[in-house]
Amino acid sequence: MMVNRGQQAFPRGEYLRRLALVKSEMARRDIDALFVSDGHNIAYLTGYTALSAYVPQGIVVSMHEEEPTFILRLCDAPAAIHQCFMERDKIIGYPEALIGNPDKDGYDAVIDYLEESDLANRGIGIETYSLAAQSSEKFRTRLPKAKLVDCTKAVAWIRLIKSDLEIEVMREAAAISDAAILRAAEVIRPGVREADVAAEIAASLIRGANGKPGTMIEQMALCSSPRTGTCHIPWSEDDLRQGSQINIELGGSRHGYCAGLMRTYSIGAPSDRLRRVHEIQVAGLEASLGAIRPGATCSDVANAFYLTIGKHGLKKETRCGYAHGIGWLEPTASLKDGDMTELKPNMTFHLMLGNWIDEDFGYVISETFRVTQSGVEVLTNVPRKIFEI
Amino acid sequence: MMVNRGQQAFPRGEYLRRLALVKSEMARRDIDALFVSDGHNIAYLTGYTALSAYVPQGIVVSMHEEEPTFILRLCDAPAAIHQCFMERDKIIGYPEALIGNPDKDGYDAVIDYLEESDLANRGIGIETYSLAAQSSEKFRTRLPKAKLVDCTKAVAWIRLIKSDLEIEVMREAAAISDAAILRAAEVIRPGVREADVAAEIAASLIRGANGKPGTMIEQMALCSSPRTGTCHIPWSEDDLRQGSQINIELGGSRHGYCAGLMRTYSIGAPSDRLRRVHEIQVAGLEASLGAIRPGATCSDVANAFYLTIGKHGLKKETRCGYAHGIGWLEPTASLKDGDMTELKPNMTFHLMLGNWIDEDFGYVISETFRVTQSGVEVLTNVPRKIFEI
Repeated sequence: MMVNRGQQAFPRGEYLRRLALVKSEMARRDIDALFVSDGHNIAYLTGYTALSAYVPQGIVVSMHEEEPTFILRLCDAPAAIHQCFMERDKIIGYPEALIGNPDKDGYDAVIDYLEESDLANRGIGIETYSLAAQSSEKFRTRLPKAKLVDCTKAVAWIRLIKSDLEIEVMREAAAISDAAILRAAEVIRPGVREADVAAEIAASLIRGANGKPGTMIEQMALCSSPRTGTCHIPWSEDDLRQGSQINIELGGSRHGYCAGLMRTYSIGAPSDRLRRVHEIQVAGLEASLGAIRPGATCSDVANAFYLTIGKHGLKKETRCGYAHGIGWLEPTASLKDGDMTELKPNMTFHLMLGNWIDEDFGYVISETFRVTQSGVEVLTNVPRKIFEI
Repeated sequence: MMVNRGQQAFPRGEYLRRLALVKSEMARRDIDALFVSDGHNIAYLTGYTALSAYVPQGIVVSMHEEEPTFILRLCDAPAAIHQCFMERDKIIGYPEALIGNPDKDGYDAVIDYLEESDLANRGIGIETYSLAAQSSEKFRTRLPKAKLVDCTKAVAWIRLIKSDLEIEVMREAAAISDAAILRAAEVIRPGVREADVAAEIAASLIRGANGKPGTMIEQMALCSSPRTGTCHIPWSEDDLRQGSQINIELGGSRHGYCAGLMRTYSIGAPSDRLRRVHEIQVAGLEASLGAIRPGATCSDVANAFYLTIGKHGLKKETRCGYAHGIGWLEPTASLKDGDMTELKPNMTFHLMLGNWIDEDFGYVISETFRVTQSGVEVLTNVPRKIFEI
């Protein structure tokens, strides 16, 4: 009648290590409890990756408890018991009456829990960034004696630096990304629909690599001529043709960790323009990788790219990437001019060098990397070429 | 150098029809402009489905303009020009300097546009439900002379009633759901990993049906014994075994429209308990479908199910479904006791009868339906059986 804890992606000690970092930040901010509603932060601190975040849920990290308490919809409690590292008494299911109810929702259950736990008069952190205005307001109204502190991005900054165990999982995700990029080269052919290439990629992303399947599907972007100037458009029903250029952005996923990867394909010989852009972009990519070391800034990495391609007369309007790994877009550091975040070992980024040059022409290449003690380890590993079909 | 408008999912007149409904609601609320930031509402009113909503974006519907104006990140403007029904001068790209910038973001560009369009002193609707607290506050602070009106769910209530053109697209999505459920029955075998079944389903969902591919991947839930008591858990790496029960929830997707479908599978003969639950649930499903007609309430539909299964000693804790179609969970009506929303022709719902009875045992079945002039049309169409392998 009871569900058991499943195989865990990480040992208990790893979660306690992460929680110790969070509690240290909580002490610095002088709060007793932190309510974490961001889905990636929940996964980071508990192991939970089930898809229930469309209704209110979240964990309360208390300075007075070793394990966090997860408050979520009652029907999702078995998944939490199965996936989370905590003991089952730390999983609290709130009743179905709070679903689709205009007057009360799951955040009321969270606030009830804070009151019952004698935390309602203390310093409480909330992540207003992942709460709608109404929900933030509910915490303020229902907890008038609490000292509410906005802790948006507090956990995200902590998770930016991965442990070696996390890096190992990101390597698994990156191997899946590699496999999917190579699989695309096998199925891109004249007369094949964009959608059928996407179907094969999706299957590859789940089948995985080295016996380790993908554990969810990250959305992918796939476009071909005349849409290569778009960056986030879904695949279409159009057939690929002789002469088509195809741009793909995808990422393998393992236990909530992903590794982004972009490559450009050409059916038939690439145009001179495409080839030239590719050469300049790869030179820029290498310059960027060469700039990565502890102590360098995100700005340095981006500017190494901008400077190199600028010498060859090319510009890129968009940033050169972002913190990446626990979810696609970690909302902290950007690889862009002026971001003075200092690189530290085991920070992970998507070096995203997609360059949408004209409305109807763009080129994509990217790598996922970690900062090492002395430089960089590129986690993704496929040739830095235009895949010519 | 310019990207052209692509093939549209709907004719221009269909978008103007939807906008006329929205403007009529705006008149009722006495506002001149409505800022729509919810991604599904944007798709509904423009045709845009590219995956750029992780940065601020949205459309301004003005009482003084026929077409809405879409303000989004500059690099995403070509996708909007390609996908949206509006003229290209209604697509405004905001500069990259607003990305990853702690001081200003894309909502500042929206507010600038409202000021330049002489709307800053008027009644302006915003959807606070899809805005973080900080962003709502920005509208208040930067538009001190505007009369800000919370229009959360205003567009969602309009889109609950589909046009015949939209129903046709949902039929296409439903045919994809059917194909994927049947495909799963072909690949579920002892010794196959859950992940490999998920891979085949994902590929089916994109390859589509009747020559019409899926245009994005809706997340799916797939679990097998001993996890059938969980509802939203991702697939695992475990092998299926003789005797395994498998629960699947999936949905085809066409141009932002989806059609959810759930079925239960058994490798080998189902247990007596599973067979008995199945029979009761199907009786409940049929009773629910029989209760659907214009003028009946959502509560009636749910209670027909609860009453029927109750007679056989079964309970279901969760609601019986929700408004569905433009995105998975339309945030309006719920098929639950006490929801007095009156059914009207061409409202569409996911009749979601998943029943997680014990921590380690659940059964799933569902259909996507529309209300007709006199009753119901079930859009999904696979046998209401336990798929026995």
